Amino acid sequence: MAVLDLQDYSIFVGSCREPLGHFLKERVFSRIFVLVDERTALHCLPLLADVLDSAAVLKIPSGEIHKNLATCSTVWAALMDAGAGRDALLVNVGGGVIGDMGGFCAATYKRGIAFVQIPTTLLSQVDASIGGKLGIDFHQVKNSIGVFANPGAVFVDPAFLGTLPPAELRSGFAEIIKHALIADAGQWESLKGRNDLFNVPSEETIVASLKIKQAIVTQDPTEKGLRKALNFGHTIGHAVESVSLDGPNPLLHGEAVAVGMVCEAFLSWKKGFLAQTDLDEICARLLYWYQPARLDPSHFTDYFSLMRNDKKNEQGAINFSLIGPPGTVHINQYFSEEEITDSLLFLNDKRRLQG
Amino acid sequence: MAVLDLQDYSIFVGSCREPLGHFLKERVFSRIFVLVDERTALHCLPLLADVLDSAAVLKIPSGEIHKNLATCSTVWAALMDAGAGRDALLVNVGGGVIGDMGGFCAATYKRGIAFVQIPTTLLSQVDASIGGKLGIDFHQVKNSIGVFANPGAVFVDPAFLGTLPPAELRSGFAEIIKHALIADAGQWESLKGRNDLFNVPSEETIVASLKIKQAIVTQDPTEKGLRKALNFGHTIGHAVESVSLDGPNPLLHGEAVAVGMVCEAFLSWKKGFLAQTDLDEICARLLYWYQPARLDPSHFTDYFSLMRNDKKNEQGAINFSLIGPPGTVHINQYFSEEEITDSLLFLNDKRRLQG
Repeated sequence: MAVLDLQDYSIFVGSCREPLGHFLKERVFSRIFVLVDERTALHCLPLLADVLDSAAVLKIPSGEIHKNLATCSTVWAALMDAGAGRDALLVNVGGGVIGDMGGFCAATYKRGIAFVQIPTTLLSQVDASIGGKLGIDFHQVKNSIGVFANPGAVFVDPAFLGTLPPAELRSGFAEIIKHALIADAGQWESLKGRNDLFNVPSEETIVASLKIKQAIVTQDPTEKGLRKALNFGHTIGHAVESVSLDGPNPLLHGEAVAVGMVCEAFLSWKKGFLAQTDLDEICARLLYWYQPARLDPSHFTDYFSLMRNDKKNEQGAINFSLIGPPGTVHINQYFSEEEITDSLLFLNDKRRLQG
Repeated sequence: MAVLDLQDYSIFVGSCREPLGHFLKERVFSRIFVLVDERTALHCLPLLADVLDSAAVLKIPSGEIHKNLATCSTVWAALMDAGAGRDALLVNVGGGVIGDMGGFCAATYKRGIAFVQIPTTLLSQVDASIGGKLGIDFHQVKNSIGVFANPGAVFVDPAFLGTLPPAELRSGFAEIIKHALIADAGQWESLKGRNDLFNVPSEETIVASLKIKQAIVTQDPTEKGLRKALNFGHTIGHAVESVSLDGPNPLLHGEAVAVGMVCEAFLSWKKGFLAQTDLDEICARLLYWYQPARLDPSHFTDYFSLMRNDKKNEQGAINFSLIGPPGTVHINQYFSEEEITDSLLFLNDKRRLQG
């Protein structure tokens, strides 16, 4: 069991049963509610059954398309109908959708009740669980409505990862790779030797990745500056992900971020931050691991309209976080539409060569 | 011009044109949006025209029934369609609905943009403008979804009060009276001599009232304890207001709070906090000023169901903030349903005698 202490709360990595039980005994809550989706109700809740046996279960449908105001309304209404007071607790058991949306529901219900995050996907364990970003998708823009608020505690239990499909593990690895590329050359060295990303990572790998994010969000909790570093791969990745969700082949978040990292590594090279050899190696590994589909140029207009609505933008310009030599990062970088288009075509070109 | 400094922001009381102009010059915002309703667009916006001439105007329908998620969605969508970034500013010009809902929209748009409050009713000037409580009505419960977040500044300009109907002024006075009763015996002494509450109060009266609320919210911004003092008259008042909104004679907030203060003064007497003579005097003044209608016993069940959902409750019990001798307060007081019913009947009885 590793414990990472942040300013207001702790992240417990390892079996969650004991520390969760301790947390629930230590703090006094009038009522405990557990938010799950159809999948975590089936695969994850049973692992917590006796620790949470006094809790009322709120179940919502699975999937990003339900991360919206309508689902929040059902959660708020359920809390209200149950007479939940401000001293109630909401335990969010699930992936990023459950954590982001459940956290947002808790942070806005009666102007804020306590909540606990139990992330059950690799992606949410190494990324969404830490840093207090909560929210929902709105008006076709991901996480465009939300707040910053910290949970009472986070329990990262690798036991949940055993039930994940391989593609979900690979998706989660994208954030581990991103953390390594922006802040930990050593972890990148060890990651790049992997033949595939379909295995559950060790607790040490998870802890190392969490520590990178912890160090960054502690210095800049509300993303005024340094925290933007975590956006590497995400400016383009979010746009590619959003567009794919409306099509026949929706991408997982990490799959889209892998695409974004290839394009934004190109932009990093373009700015002179990244050496040609590093660019080649990073792109070769990402394309090999993720085997992305070609980006359809007929979607580029949609990408730009989504990128212009990115929360990190200032004065209307599209904001990028780029990398230098592995383990280093450059925030607040800007490009012309032409250069950004080049980076998208670069991916298409590379994957053609790779294939 | 009086300036009250709170931890993160200041409240400017007096003509707002100069300090608002100064604020907009001092801080850099990529875009400025002004939220108004149909009424403030007509009566208040013209007074700010040249100070806000570069701002985009967002107009929503007037009235508490529009303080809901649907209206928030139109505000968020308008901001998004205009490409508003995190460095945009929302200026809320209006009464409590505009301030509470506009503030909530700003605090949740892209996880929070800056906002400024320009309250234009007496009620919002002495109450809602201060303390960072934001939110909307949901599931028939007032302000049940929201957050705590502080504005960049508040501009309390008595010039706006000149356009208010007399009933709106009287409604605002209810919060001034409440502040006096819980914390300022001297102000109560001077208020109780008023023949009616249909005139614009002096700047001094407004400042004195704001200072009471400031002192309380500074000590307890998120309502864990002391801030509950401000709830005097509101446990019953909110319920009476909510029920009235569904009927043919909707009450203004202050009119309902006046009813709540009569009932809760009775409960204060019942607990032995308030002397009979004080109870008689307070009730006589409130009934004379507000001339409330009889509370229909067929609504009592609805009152109780609403009171049980009050945000201040803990462990499911209905929480009251009561008064002692004018200028003193007792928080976290509880009663049986029978005693609460007695307090409702007390009002009916008193107004019968009064009439």
